[in-house]
Amino acid sequence: MEIKIERTTAPKARPDYSNLGFGRSFTDHMFIMNYTEGKGWHDPRIVPYQPFVLEPSCMVFHYGQETFEGMKAYLRADGDIQLFRPKDNFRRMNDSDARLCIPELDVDFCVEAVKTLLKVDRDWMPTEPGTSMYIRPFVIATDPHLGVHASKTYIFAIILSPSGAYYTGGLAPVRIYVETEDVRAVRGGTGEAKTGGNYSASIRAQERAGSRGYEQVLWLDGVERKYIEEVGAMNVFFKIDGTVVTPALVGSILPGITRRSCIELLKKHNIPVEERRLSLEELKNAARDGRLEEAFGSGTAAVISPIGELAWEGEKFTINGGKIGEVSQWLYDTLTDLQWGRSEDPFGWTMIVK
Amino acid sequence: MEIKIERTTAPKARPDYSNLGFGRSFTDHMFIMNYTEGKGWHDPRIVPYQPFVLEPSCMVFHYGQETFEGMKAYLRADGDIQLFRPKDNFRRMNDSDARLCIPELDVDFCVEAVKTLLKVDRDWMPTEPGTSMYIRPFVIATDPHLGVHASKTYIFAIILSPSGAYYTGGLAPVRIYVETEDVRAVRGGTGEAKTGGNYSASIRAQERAGSRGYEQVLWLDGVERKYIEEVGAMNVFFKIDGTVVTPALVGSILPGITRRSCIELLKKHNIPVEERRLSLEELKNAARDGRLEEAFGSGTAAVISPIGELAWEGEKFTINGGKIGEVSQWLYDTLTDLQWGRSEDPFGWTMIVK
Repeated sequence: MEIKIERTTAPKARPDYSNLGFGRSFTDHMFIMNYTEGKGWHDPRIVPYQPFVLEPSCMVFHYGQETFEGMKAYLRADGDIQLFRPKDNFRRMNDSDARLCIPELDVDFCVEAVKTLLKVDRDWMPTEPGTSMYIRPFVIATDPHLGVHASKTYIFAIILSPSGAYYTGGLAPVRIYVETEDVRAVRGGTGEAKTGGNYSASIRAQERAGSRGYEQVLWLDGVERKYIEEVGAMNVFFKIDGTVVTPALVGSILPGITRRSCIELLKKHNIPVEERRLSLEELKNAARDGRLEEAFGSGTAAVISPIGELAWEGEKFTINGGKIGEVSQWLYDTLTDLQWGRSEDPFGWTMIVK
Repeated sequence: MEIKIERTTAPKARPDYSNLGFGRSFTDHMFIMNYTEGKGWHDPRIVPYQPFVLEPSCMVFHYGQETFEGMKAYLRADGDIQLFRPKDNFRRMNDSDARLCIPELDVDFCVEAVKTLLKVDRDWMPTEPGTSMYIRPFVIATDPHLGVHASKTYIFAIILSPSGAYYTGGLAPVRIYVETEDVRAVRGGTGEAKTGGNYSASIRAQERAGSRGYEQVLWLDGVERKYIEEVGAMNVFFKIDGTVVTPALVGSILPGITRRSCIELLKKHNIPVEERRLSLEELKNAARDGRLEEAFGSGTAAVISPIGELAWEGEKFTINGGKIGEVSQWLYDTLTDLQWGRSEDPFGWTMIVK
């Protein structure tokens, strides 16, 4: 399929690049294609960034049949733009789509769409250290019918948001609160898919943690409420007795690409790493005994988010004196060096946008 | 707040009223109001039915922060239109909204909005036996930002869809398949809220049941996978040994208004009814022993949906010879007589739109 390009005749005013924040400004163009049953995905095009015009009866407004992805484009010192494991994002999008009965996408074509859009909006790329272009592909169901069913029509879109550095004053540890009431996801549900319902389910607990003075929620499993799953909207790792432990992908946990990259980096450097069930009880005991050496979240936005304090009903623990641990810092440095093209990539994870 | 009314200057062509189906046609007008943080709900208005124009970055497309309701308006023999327990719908919407961190609505004002809209589109009311006007209130989050948060802006809308008779040839029993892989909801999640994520999570199992030749899915609980929760998008009842049993509202089950009406009707008529945990094992045993006398779903669309066959891995049971049970038929007749104003309402459930 050929991607048609219609360039804007009215470029937007640029946001304040010294204060971009996350996901608040969008570039001049967007990628769109449509799906119609019997016809497949069709009419891929880059058009001026513009609102969707959708019937109030559209399925996405009522039944949440929607999936998304998140990745970044990074500006290298040589002026090239590079992507980090973009095929993995679209492979995961296909997994999410399969759970939500949304038709499959062509992974290579989607990567091509990202690259083409980045080239069209090349001059929106932020240049300050730590900044990047956040890329948001998403699919929404557009059948204008209220019967609960798999939609027969969809929009797939990619929008770009120049985003500020996640950390402006170095890696800042966050404080997390163990959520014991709300559940983000359960096996058999949609927890391993990137779909709206998981995120809407998480807002209340996140607000509750905020009102207690904590930045993030630590999610427990929905079945036994004993095992650790994720932190906020990130995967989570703990270094206990020299071994890095992260919850195994049991169906209710998002298979993070940063998560996988961390595991692969740790293995390559012979740092012990385990994917397994980890109970809150085990974690509490490790914290009480001084064996909990580091904790961090992993995700596209923050890359690595060190955890400095862990709290639950009436009890709290400071981890590594509230400072960033060695492994956390090493993973952050190694991943960001790869992502911004400051180091050689022995993994084939990076892809330059020519 | 005063509801402003802008009438259409281009009335739409009417759909084929002899073949309306469900949720496919919409009337000439819709009700809309907006929410803005600091300002509250504002600008309630009835406008010509028209598309929403929304930024691609709107929260509803990404994080599913959305809730809805479903109810019907019924044409009485005297020409009046009546509603059935509409305040209960908006009370439940407020419960759903609380779970999703969406601001509260004024219940009485929402009922007034429904009545005003029905009067504006009075001549769209279907008149054939069994037809009704389906009413769909819904809220969507509209902040154009990609950070996961509770939106600070929302649209609340009500659309009307003239809908055909659910049963055209009398109450037809459906065949249901017990879903053992996918889960619709779990306690701590959003199962008791009417929000998109529950419905998108259910599509795959519904398609799987369809491909096996079954109309509906019987959902089990997400924790132990042992207890019965709902059938399709309805609550479910079983008559076992003369007692009507329905799963208790444990947090993952929608508190249906038809469900509650059934329980209240049964109690009033001294038919034994229990809200409690009911395991699939207990149900299987009752079916094997011939003690499972009736089964039916309850919901706004079907009112009562008799279940004629229950199947799971390799085993299946016909219920009541595949025919409608006495209690099911009595509940259907009693409820529909109340809803269409054919009988006196001793409960105060009905409300005439003057």
